[in-house]
Amino acid sequence: MSETWEPGGADKAIRRLAEDARKAAARLNLASTRQKNEALEAIARRLAAEREAIRAANQADLGVARAAGVPATVVNRLELTGRRFASMAQGLLDVAALPDPIGEVVEEWTRPNGLRIAKQRVPMGVIGLIYEARPNVTVDAAAICLKAGSAALLKGGKEAARSNEALVGVIQGALTEAGLPPTAVQAVPGGREGAAALMRAVGLVDCLIPRGGAGLIRSVVQDSRVPVIETGAGVCHVYVDAAADPDMATDIIVNAKTTGTATCNAAETLLVHRDVAARFLPGAAARLRDFGVELRGCEVTRRFAPWATPATEEDWAAEYLDLVLAVRVVDSLDEALAHIARYGTRHSEAIVTADAGAARRFQAEVDAAAVYWNASTRFTDGGEFGFGAEIGISTQKLHARGPMGLREITSHKYVITGDGQVRP
Amino acid sequence: MSETWEPGGADKAIRRLAEDARKAAARLNLASTRQKNEALEAIARRLAAEREAIRAANQADLGVARAAGVPATVVNRLELTGRRFASMAQGLLDVAALPDPIGEVVEEWTRPNGLRIAKQRVPMGVIGLIYEARPNVTVDAAAICLKAGSAALLKGGKEAARSNEALVGVIQGALTEAGLPPTAVQAVPGGREGAAALMRAVGLVDCLIPRGGAGLIRSVVQDSRVPVIETGAGVCHVYVDAAADPDMATDIIVNAKTTGTATCNAAETLLVHRDVAARFLPGAAARLRDFGVELRGCEVTRRFAPWATPATEEDWAAEYLDLVLAVRVVDSLDEALAHIARYGTRHSEAIVTADAGAARRFQAEVDAAAVYWNASTRFTDGGEFGFGAEIGISTQKLHARGPMGLREITSHKYVITGDGQVRP
Repeated sequence: MSETWEPGGADKAIRRLAEDARKAAARLNLASTRQKNEALEAIARRLAAEREAIRAANQADLGVARAAGVPATVVNRLELTGRRFASMAQGLLDVAALPDPIGEVVEEWTRPNGLRIAKQRVPMGVIGLIYEARPNVTVDAAAICLKAGSAALLKGGKEAARSNEALVGVIQGALTEAGLPPTAVQAVPGGREGAAALMRAVGLVDCLIPRGGAGLIRSVVQDSRVPVIETGAGVCHVYVDAAADPDMATDIIVNAKTTGTATCNAAETLLVHRDVAARFLPGAAARLRDFGVELRGCEVTRRFAPWATPATEEDWAAEYLDLVLAVRVVDSLDEALAHIARYGTRHSEAIVTADAGAARRFQAEVDAAAVYWNASTRFTDGGEFGFGAEIGISTQKLHARGPMGLREITSHKYVITGDGQVRP
Repeated sequence: MSETWEPGGADKAIRRLAEDARKAAARLNLASTRQKNEALEAIARRLAAEREAIRAANQADLGVARAAGVPATVVNRLELTGRRFASMAQGLLDVAALPDPIGEVVEEWTRPNGLRIAKQRVPMGVIGLIYEARPNVTVDAAAICLKAGSAALLKGGKEAARSNEALVGVIQGALTEAGLPPTAVQAVPGGREGAAALMRAVGLVDCLIPRGGAGLIRSVVQDSRVPVIETGAGVCHVYVDAAADPDMATDIIVNAKTTGTATCNAAETLLVHRDVAARFLPGAAARLRDFGVELRGCEVTRRFAPWATPATEEDWAAEYLDLVLAVRVVDSLDEALAHIARYGTRHSEAIVTADAGAARRFQAEVDAAAVYWNASTRFTDGGEFGFGAEIGISTQKLHARGPMGLREITSHKYVITGDGQVRP
């Protein structure tokens, strides 16, 4: 959308949206599971019924983007293909099928003075999302927020503005049909100015979740006055220990590198204990080459895979999101731990070993959301963890860490019942 | 401390401190419960042994503060009296006696593919505290962070700089004695510049907790790039419903207003349903007057307590922290809920009623950390909840909400064990 605002206009407009969202959140807080599920199912139904109108809006976005010379990867993500329509619809039904997190009593106890304290799961309130020009995220994020009882303010990339407007229109129709306030899901207009105003809406927006590339996330973390859950960057390592089974290690690194290569849980660096290098590296390097993976290796690595490019300092810190893998041979578990502490992004880290002591040390000392022993880093994902749909993967330690499903975007309150207790 | 820095000097100095804190945190993460408790006990012992030196530093701070004409309330909080020494020592032993939150497996499950996922409680890492010139907070906060396995960067008010330096010296001696890194607890020097640099230490400090007045908290929430847990402001209400027992209601409002008047969980506004006003207000107002409470009442209130001052719009939003109470008669539960939604700070809210339906509605609809039925708001406190020591009371919805004890300042990680699983 190409709204232009007077100075301060963006703040005023976004505060109005956010105030509407707060009112909607108060009603969502009291909505029954059935009502929320009906809304989710109605969205799925209406997406199918209004597919042509949505596609027209999407084609308009695509036309503008192509004319503006937007990169092909961005255009690809922008397009609402038949496959993406199917996946949005399935996502909605999947979320409807998940248990409702709201109202669950997480803990309950009675104090010596007779006060009964229940820690109860409640909605976050108003959740802001800032993401790239991927209109399918609009529907996925709205669905998760809705089921978790929160109103959503969705700020997608400006290239997708028409598509998002069409999708939010469909969602709002479905909310009304289910007896819920349409303002429970709103698109935030106005490009960067709109995003900046959203980041300043302290007291109205309970938390902001940025989803996208490292640059987008960094700018939200730097600029937001509203609490942020940082997601994203994954410089993930697979460490092949001295006591690793070379075949298992090969399967794991090939999987961690070559499936979902552009996702944050893909491996970017392979660390190899020198005692296993001769038995493991030649075969693993050949397998990786078969999959089209370019290797950037340290000196020792290049003895076993001479066709690898020499690795530089930058390679150890790189999140390639591509068929490129940095490889380093280390002298010890300690050296592997130090490398991960220095270059890792606290996302997902794996050790492959038959030595339980080494595994225990690795799992205790590595500071990351998910620490694997004898498995691929690619499992760090809401679906693979059994959470169902996820809204992102947190790489910070506050609030949620790792895959964020429905429970991870809720808050709680203490509900306390007495019979007249006062504090002595 | 009166350090002066060159441009950028504060950032460099604080980053160095924070890097040392990160290294210390990695070691604390692996410390045994016994080692942490030994350190806590050693701090208590050394506080007693070095009491005279600490008092001398404190006297120096007090002298400077008095000469500078610092307000009496600030001077009072600054002084390390015998009672405060006793309370710091007892606090240390209490924290040592609490169960260790670290390593606890919060949840554990096995996926259909055989992956075992354990959600394990881990330390936050490096916690920054920004607080006023209250040196006893230095010891209390250090103790809680230490037991929860995190390194602490303590930025107290500049008036207490000498006292804090002396206390941190004692703490560091005790840490060394217990075989733990002394840099696990550090004082942050340099007044406002030091605090500002701490707020910019993204990637080194995992979270910042401001403790103090509304101004201090607002400035940290506004300026910090590091994730913040907002604590504090409490405009708490007691709502006396139509079906309230007037005697119980009187006991509760007197307790909520006149004990711990300067604390955030004290009541600031009394809401009274009009149907109970005649039976409740005259007696309650008289009791409150006996306790020296000044009333600021709406028109109807003043019919029952003519000596009350007329309340203005500002009174409904005021956090008096004093023997002053705003009183408003409302027409309905709905009006009470609307008043609380508008003026409350999401801290602690209470309903007094014999009507279970009204109580259920109140507890479901009020958006606050703690919602009471037939009890005083003064129970919102780590000790009263049974958490033991607390580091503050969160009024935000992200991460922790309500009293924050040991568990509330931890994070978690997923520890995943497989036998070679790769993602299809």
